[in-house]
Amino acid sequence: MSVKLTILGSSGAVPAFGRFPTSQYLIVQNRHFLIDAGEGVQMQLARYQIPVHKIDCIFISHLHGDHYLGLMGLLFSMHLHRRVNDLHLYSQPGLDEIILLQLKYSKSVLNYAIHFHVYDPAQQVKIYEDNVLTVETIPLIHKLPCAGFLFRETIKPANLNKQKLKPGMLIQHIAQLKKGADVYDDHGKLLYRNSDFTLPPPTSYAYAFCSDTAWNEAMIEQIKYVNLLYHEATFMDEDKDKARETKHSTTLEAATIAKYAEVDRLLIGHFSARYRDLDLLLNEAKTIFRNSSLAEEGISFEIPHEPNS
Amino acid sequence: MSVKLTILGSSGAVPAFGRFPTSQYLIVQNRHFLIDAGEGVQMQLARYQIPVHKIDCIFISHLHGDHYLGLMGLLFSMHLHRRVNDLHLYSQPGLDEIILLQLKYSKSVLNYAIHFHVYDPAQQVKIYEDNVLTVETIPLIHKLPCAGFLFRETIKPANLNKQKLKPGMLIQHIAQLKKGADVYDDHGKLLYRNSDFTLPPPTSYAYAFCSDTAWNEAMIEQIKYVNLLYHEATFMDEDKDKARETKHSTTLEAATIAKYAEVDRLLIGHFSARYRDLDLLLNEAKTIFRNSSLAEEGISFEIPHEPNS
Repeated sequence: MSVKLTILGSSGAVPAFGRFPTSQYLIVQNRHFLIDAGEGVQMQLARYQIPVHKIDCIFISHLHGDHYLGLMGLLFSMHLHRRVNDLHLYSQPGLDEIILLQLKYSKSVLNYAIHFHVYDPAQQVKIYEDNVLTVETIPLIHKLPCAGFLFRETIKPANLNKQKLKPGMLIQHIAQLKKGADVYDDHGKLLYRNSDFTLPPPTSYAYAFCSDTAWNEAMIEQIKYVNLLYHEATFMDEDKDKARETKHSTTLEAATIAKYAEVDRLLIGHFSARYRDLDLLLNEAKTIFRNSSLAEEGISFEIPHEPNS
Repeated sequence: MSVKLTILGSSGAVPAFGRFPTSQYLIVQNRHFLIDAGEGVQMQLARYQIPVHKIDCIFISHLHGDHYLGLMGLLFSMHLHRRVNDLHLYSQPGLDEIILLQLKYSKSVLNYAIHFHVYDPAQQVKIYEDNVLTVETIPLIHKLPCAGFLFRETIKPANLNKQKLKPGMLIQHIAQLKKGADVYDDHGKLLYRNSDFTLPPPTSYAYAFCSDTAWNEAMIEQIKYVNLLYHEATFMDEDKDKARETKHSTTLEAATIAKYAEVDRLLIGHFSARYRDLDLLLNEAKTIFRNSSLAEEGISFEIPHEPNS
């Protein structure tokens, strides 16, 4: 098992040089997520042979067209592919209205249900949780209300150290230790301290997706130490005035956030149509944060995953 | 000068094999038109280096997503490219509401004005006219109200036959003949009959775009003798039950319409995702109408144009 991210689009607001607008596909232990859905996302999903029917949750960062205009086509195609499973859509207010209006005019009744989960992008709030991971919003600074998403594997219980187990331990005592609890007798007396019988838990992994944002120090604490950070880098440093004006970031700003947050790896994307050669942006980011990569179409990034015993 | 059609998308409702949904770019004597705007149309326009800023009129056949979902992205990109010229949008009711809602949620005020021209798809009606051509709707039969479009060059005046001109003819008499009129003296007596001094006018050309439709004999009269007919052919004959069910046409039906309408050339498109090899569809169409072609992405079809003298 692994955490795997596939980039479906790397373009800024105006698609150029064959680049598509923002969209990413994330698998965390058999959960399949779509993050943003720029125009053409259904073609990109087909191009990279991604099993669309497995995607049950879609997270939309904000309502600029380059982050959601591919959603409606995807919803229609899921219907035509006879999807029946419920779909969960996490978005700001308005997207539900946009979708329902288009369903109305196409006289479509989808085969499957859409659950709209509306979040407040100004708050850092947990919007998804299951027994494997949580997803939190990351408040960002942009021309429209905008949120990133922090995907974090749930902290796992410690592993049992079998060599330390003692003869005469009851099976229910071992079960307690496996859960991470100390074991007491019927009178409340400590029998076995958990830490004496366990090894440190496997590491939990985290991916932070920071969609469109201006320089935003406030998020550093929230994304501290994540394994993988996607941070937009629409402009090079020489165009930083344009970044200010449009509330986007430069390569140097993205890399500085990665450095301050002490992440393992940085991915940059959302590239302006003014740049054909993206290596210029990558090299600039690397001057501040060495482990940087371009989030280009079709590239996958895996976070190795230690199975929980 | 020529009439030139470029295909931007050949796919049916679900894009497959790299094919894009329906969209076409038509130039008639320096008028630049977009017909339908399937998802990804802005990428296709860029791919074929089409001067988007010259497109002043967009015609949308109906409100199934595969015919208009690329429009919003195109409108945003026109804005970001600093378009200032008015844009004219010909559509059924509802598209205006869909566009305005998305502008509202993206807090966008476009640099340019959009004029919404709403037509009734059940009527055969002239929706555009200038001194060079007219555009008429072609009522089609589909699951949603749907119209095709007939682009027809205005019938030109006859050419003056200079060898027939007589000494002593006044310049205003010649001007009258050029306009196609007979010339009378002040007492209403015929001086020169127009047909004695003119040659037949250059041919006017016509292109009929027949978007999604079931078998539709009623339109044959309207599209009779057009130079170029685009007619959807979503299915092969072996899948004609599927065509009936979805109110689409087969290759044989498209070709039969072309034959009955005695058009010069047939283009077929809107291919179902079930077919990878489109030559099978083309060959089937050719069994009925020899001069058939596939309307595939990037291919242009020119109608030779005789300049009016």
